[in-house]
Amino acid sequence: MASQLQQRIPVAVLGATGMVGQRFIELLHNHPWFELVGLAASEQHGGRPYGEVARWRLPESDMPASVASLPVVACRPEALPGVRVVFSALPGEVAGEIEEAFARAGVAVFSNAKNHRMAPDVPLLIPEVNADHVAAIQEQRQRREWPGFIITNANCSATPLVMALKPLQQAFGIKKAILTTLQAISGAGYPGLPSYDIVDNVIPYIGGEEEKLERETRKMLGTWEEGRGFVDAPLAVSAHCTRVPTREGHLECVSIELERQATPEDIIAVWTNYQPEPQQLKLPTAPAHPLIYRYEEDRPQTVRDRNAGRGMTATIGRLRPCPILSYKFVVLGHNTIRGAAGGSVLNAELCVQKGLL
Amino acid sequence: MASQLQQRIPVAVLGATGMVGQRFIELLHNHPWFELVGLAASEQHGGRPYGEVARWRLPESDMPASVASLPVVACRPEALPGVRVVFSALPGEVAGEIEEAFARAGVAVFSNAKNHRMAPDVPLLIPEVNADHVAAIQEQRQRREWPGFIITNANCSATPLVMALKPLQQAFGIKKAILTTLQAISGAGYPGLPSYDIVDNVIPYIGGEEEKLERETRKMLGTWEEGRGFVDAPLAVSAHCTRVPTREGHLECVSIELERQATPEDIIAVWTNYQPEPQQLKLPTAPAHPLIYRYEEDRPQTVRDRNAGRGMTATIGRLRPCPILSYKFVVLGHNTIRGAAGGSVLNAELCVQKGLL
Amino acid sequence: MASQLQQRIPVAVLGATGMVGQRFIELLHNHPWFELVGLAASEQHGGRPYGEVARWRLPESDMPASVASLPVVACRPEALPGVRVVFSALPGEVAGEIEEAFARAGVAVFSNAKNHRMAPDVPLLIPEVNADHVAAIQEQRQRREWPGFIITNANCSATPLVMALKPLQQAFGIKKAILTTLQAISGAGYPGLPSYDIVDNVIPYIGGEEEKLERETRKMLGTWEEGRGFVDAPLAVSAHCTRVPTREGHLECVSIELERQATPEDIIAVWTNYQPEPQQLKLPTAPAHPLIYRYEEDRPQTVRDRNAGRGMTATIGRLRPCPILSYKFVVLGHNTIRGAAGGSVLNAELCVQKGLL
Amino acid sequence: MASQLQQRIPVAVLGATGMVGQRFIELLHNHPWFELVGLAASEQHGGRPYGEVARWRLPESDMPASVASLPVVACRPEALPGVRVVFSALPGEVAGEIEEAFARAGVAVFSNAKNHRMAPDVPLLIPEVNADHVAAIQEQRQRREWPGFIITNANCSATPLVMALKPLQQAFGIKKAILTTLQAISGAGYPGLPSYDIVDNVIPYIGGEEEKLERETRKMLGTWEEGRGFVDAPLAVSAHCTRVPTREGHLECVSIELERQATPEDIIAVWTNYQPEPQQLKLPTAPAHPLIYRYEEDRPQTVRDRNAGRGMTATIGRLRPCPILSYKFVVLGHNTIRGAAGGSVLNAELCVQKGLL
Repeated sequence: MASQLQQRIPVAVLGATGMVGQRFIELLHNHPWFELVGLAASEQHGGRPYGEVARWRLPESDMPASVASLPVVACRPEALPGVRVVFSALPGEVAGEIEEAFARAGVAVFSNAKNHRMAPDVPLLIPEVNADHVAAIQEQRQRREWPGFIITNANCSATPLVMALKPLQQAFGIKKAILTTLQAISGAGYPGLPSYDIVDNVIPYIGGEEEKLERETRKMLGTWEEGRGFVDAPLAVSAHCTRVPTREGHLECVSIELERQATPEDIIAVWTNYQPEPQQLKLPTAPAHPLIYRYEEDRPQTVRDRNAGRGMTATIGRLRPCPILSYKFVVLGHNTIRGAAGGSVLNAELCVQKGLL
Repeated sequence: MASQLQQRIPVAVLGATGMVGQRFIELLHNHPWFELVGLAASEQHGGRPYGEVARWRLPESDMPASVASLPVVACRPEALPGVRVVFSALPGEVAGEIEEAFARAGVAVFSNAKNHRMAPDVPLLIPEVNADHVAAIQEQRQRREWPGFIITNANCSATPLVMALKPLQQAFGIKKAILTTLQAISGAGYPGLPSYDIVDNVIPYIGGEEEKLERETRKMLGTWEEGRGFVDAPLAVSAHCTRVPTREGHLECVSIELERQATPEDIIAVWTNYQPEPQQLKLPTAPAHPLIYRYEEDRPQTVRDRNAGRGMTATIGRLRPCPILSYKFVVLGHNTIRGAAGGSVLNAELCVQKGLL
Repeated sequence: MASQLQQRIPVAVLGATGMVGQRFIELLHNHPWFELVGLAASEQHGGRPYGEVARWRLPESDMPASVASLPVVACRPEALPGVRVVFSALPGEVAGEIEEAFARAGVAVFSNAKNHRMAPDVPLLIPEVNADHVAAIQEQRQRREWPGFIITNANCSATPLVMALKPLQQAFGIKKAILTTLQAISGAGYPGLPSYDIVDNVIPYIGGEEEKLERETRKMLGTWEEGRGFVDAPLAVSAHCTRVPTREGHLECVSIELERQATPEDIIAVWTNYQPEPQQLKLPTAPAHPLIYRYEEDRPQTVRDRNAGRGMTATIGRLRPCPILSYKFVVLGHNTIRGAAGGSVLNAELCVQKGLL
Repeated sequence: MASQLQQRIPVAVLGATGMVGQRFIELLHNHPWFELVGLAASEQHGGRPYGEVARWRLPESDMPASVASLPVVACRPEALPGVRVVFSALPGEVAGEIEEAFARAGVAVFSNAKNHRMAPDVPLLIPEVNADHVAAIQEQRQRREWPGFIITNANCSATPLVMALKPLQQAFGIKKAILTTLQAISGAGYPGLPSYDIVDNVIPYIGGEEEKLERETRKMLGTWEEGRGFVDAPLAVSAHCTRVPTREGHLECVSIELERQATPEDIIAVWTNYQPEPQQLKLPTAPAHPLIYRYEEDRPQTVRDRNAGRGMTATIGRLRPCPILSYKFVVLGHNTIRGAAGGSVLNAELCVQKGLL
């Protein structure tokens, strides 16, 4: 068991120079179970120290001194000997083959990339939502003859939605969800969105985002069934995705239709009392409360609530009846922590506890 | 007829020092039909010149020199002798009684305040949408024994929605609309929203706004029937209203359910060809196109499209199927021009053409 | 000595509902030497619990639960029996008399208000800069016959400037400083600056700020001489103060003329090695490094460096020759922590160590 | 003379797809003297229509329909036959050789690039400041044996400074100027500054900008002397350049030392009465007032004053004594109009009037 780990598991970050890569470094620095021993990015860096090739972008921290001296190697298994886990912040253009090469070489891959998310044998995992989807790994390894495996985390806008929906699905069933997202600029990576495009502006379009959100939500709220594979939840999802001038934090206005009747008190109780596996296991990166409900009429707000639970909690508010579906509410999640790097670190922690590492 | 007006109609602005009041001044300055001869605000100004008591807030213009020397009088009919039309930018706390006093004194009141919007004999008017609701004035005058009358314009977030829905309602029928608004800070007036509350933030709540939006939409899309009064449109509306850090322009993400089938091409054609009464009459403040459809995948955008048609056009884009209702799209309108002062000026122009002034 | 304090000193916050008042609460919550037992604000709150009368504005934290239940009493000594220290975040309109009443009642007052800053017997204190000015308290008590006393902290824009200048003054002498400040919106308090005034804008004027900055700098860099009182430093200061759309952190572009020659290396060494009394005493709120020099060409930056040393460190960068004076550089400080509440808490800690409490 | 131009002069824009290129198009569209007949950019566009290869970035306008169908050709003289004037918005990496090729081919080049600004025979021209520097063209043509010529406009931050200083230099002499600039994001071009770098931030560094500002100011305020060439003004300039989150408009806080005494009234009169050659000639792009002085204590402001004189006026305010130099003041100019495209168009208009085209 993790708590008896004799020594920390050696891990590496792929795509270590980008914004999500830096979040991985920030979260893995001084992690109780994982020891960050390797950094990989594009070949051009040729093994030079991270402190030389990367500029630190995260305003909340400085580059950890121990990381500055690590060489930035190529994204190849042989360049990272001894590494048992990699966290991938690679861009979609290259993530597919690189991640597979690591899995083939026996490494456990926890990926933030979109490439394998919808594969029929790859878990799209949020430990508070679908921890049982980890079972797909066995089939993944058999089919692909990999000693390692790949687990993905969800799109940053799908994550808080699914966290809010899961306990409702369990308690009351959900038939429909229509939502509009108001997403922060960090979601576009770095350099990402030109400042001239977003100061004093809203852009009501993020390429591919609505499709991802709709599709991933159904997979995560669905089931893994032996012999059948992943079965989507019978849930209709319709998303409008927009970009707004905020630094971090995706806020979402959601209308849902429940299968069974529930009072607002019922719903809030279900959210407030939600204590799934990661919280019971007290995984290091799991927040004490995966969901917080705020009773103030104007919460959650992006700047005030994005750091709840060190960025791992989804904050909900404004539950009220919807004149068209059953209820409407607002949910907010930190997009580069819970919605990206933090999500994958929590996935890896779950796998440690399940004996997969 | 207006085009043969021998001389311009003397008008005044109530609440002339606030942000909407200043928009009224901006739009009435050099207006072909109206001559701005009076400014009124709270009693405390005691007739001092506007240039002394007011600070100009609008960045697009300077205070017109002719206005700077006008005295700021109290909001009483006797303080504005000879004025036949008043444009009211008064706050809701005082608008009710003041506006009635002017109507009682024989003045035509065009109001941006919320107080009388839902009254059973007061038109909630957008000339492109429900010009026929002007018929309610006859009953209003009879019932209230007023020589003057009151006509209101709609809430700034209801306005672009209703403009986009009206031609669809005519052509295909509408059963439901779920929307999320992303509203600019100027919608909160001046001083309005503290900067510390909105820089790097989204506030998913605007007091009373969702109720107003849902209610006013049904009234405006409804009918005026002799003997029955206003009959709401049989339309379910569900709104999420949010405030985002933009200066001007309310952007709205809308999902709708139509009564009859329509292709995207049908819908866009209906929007693009929409030329209702104000455009046919070529009212001075009416834009050539009340609705513009942008085919780019990422339009309308707040900073790029808010000034379309000098702030009087609603810009639409991103029409696509909705997995839950029939279609989804984005619409944007300028909140302090079309959604406030410009809307009321257009209402007054319509009344001139209809011989009511 | 503080480290042997048997029990914590009971303290209260005056002006507890405003933004600086909330920073005081945040910093005093769980303070090792001070126990927050009282909250005071305007009479109107009539003893109701803080959690009822105040809305928490700080995005980095929630209202501490222990504080929510404290009654908000009037700003009178008799309403806060047993309190030995008050931290004043009162507005200038009322701070003068209230603070004096507390000092007269035997309470030590640590004030963020401007009222007494320039009084000839009141220290304007930054412990890293002029800890010896505390000596003025003896005269203050004698002259005024107060059992308590008043110590003020400096204006938020003067604070980082003076921190950067002090070690240079000691080492090389300073004759002139010309600077432009780029100040955050939180410096204007709450509600403070209307958002419509600052989104996409710079306002090159802050009422009274330039005078305060110029005057306070000379007092703080001056001396306290027995029999003569405060003697201003013979330093010419010229300030341009501007407001920019950032939440927290005042950034300042400074040109200085030194009395004696110094190389850039000399100057940076003096800054980097600066370890004055608060650091030697390891006062709880003192940062390990009062000054940090960043070698990157584009630092300090507001969003990246404002939280250095938990908001108590001033960050300096871009030292380079000035074609007109000797050198130019950039300095940044957190305006509501180091430049306001944190500064006063550190002042109180210094007084504990000096045996004044 | 221009007013008798029988037909408009055919002109082209080099670098037509970027932000300054689009400002050129906006200003040349419907220009009374120039007819925009050609657009050039990188070879890759291969003659495809502008409407296909370029996305319009300017929020104040849409792409002119007549421009959308123009082919985007390579930046070579032979690709633009018949063009007598080119406006260059090319990046510095390629502008040097391309602009020389056009001058060699007999074309008059008006450039916004930095490459030739400091050349000893190239005017760095602001018509209101140094119209007589045009005399250098004769030497330029002789030395280089060019039938055409190159004239440059100044850096966007040097432009408003020099406009404010010129009449003071004439009237009172200037010895020193220390300034801090607060520059808009559009100054970095497109895509330019990543949004994650500037939302809620100030960056106190713009590569090369301080040196350009200091150097160009001395050249523009200097003289052209036959036989000696350009002689720098004997003026010390020290600049701090910063980037702030505004869209357009560079605001500058300036302290100056005059050679001769002057009262504030003297100085304001000199600014207000300034009517140099472009205003006397009534050049089409020249604003009625090149300098406007605002008496309000908090003006100029970026969002309110940047569009003064359609973006061609520099707005000044807050003149007051400086405790170190003689006076301090604030000046604001539109960086992509007066400080870039508009400046070059005005330069070309001056050359038309001087018979050089």
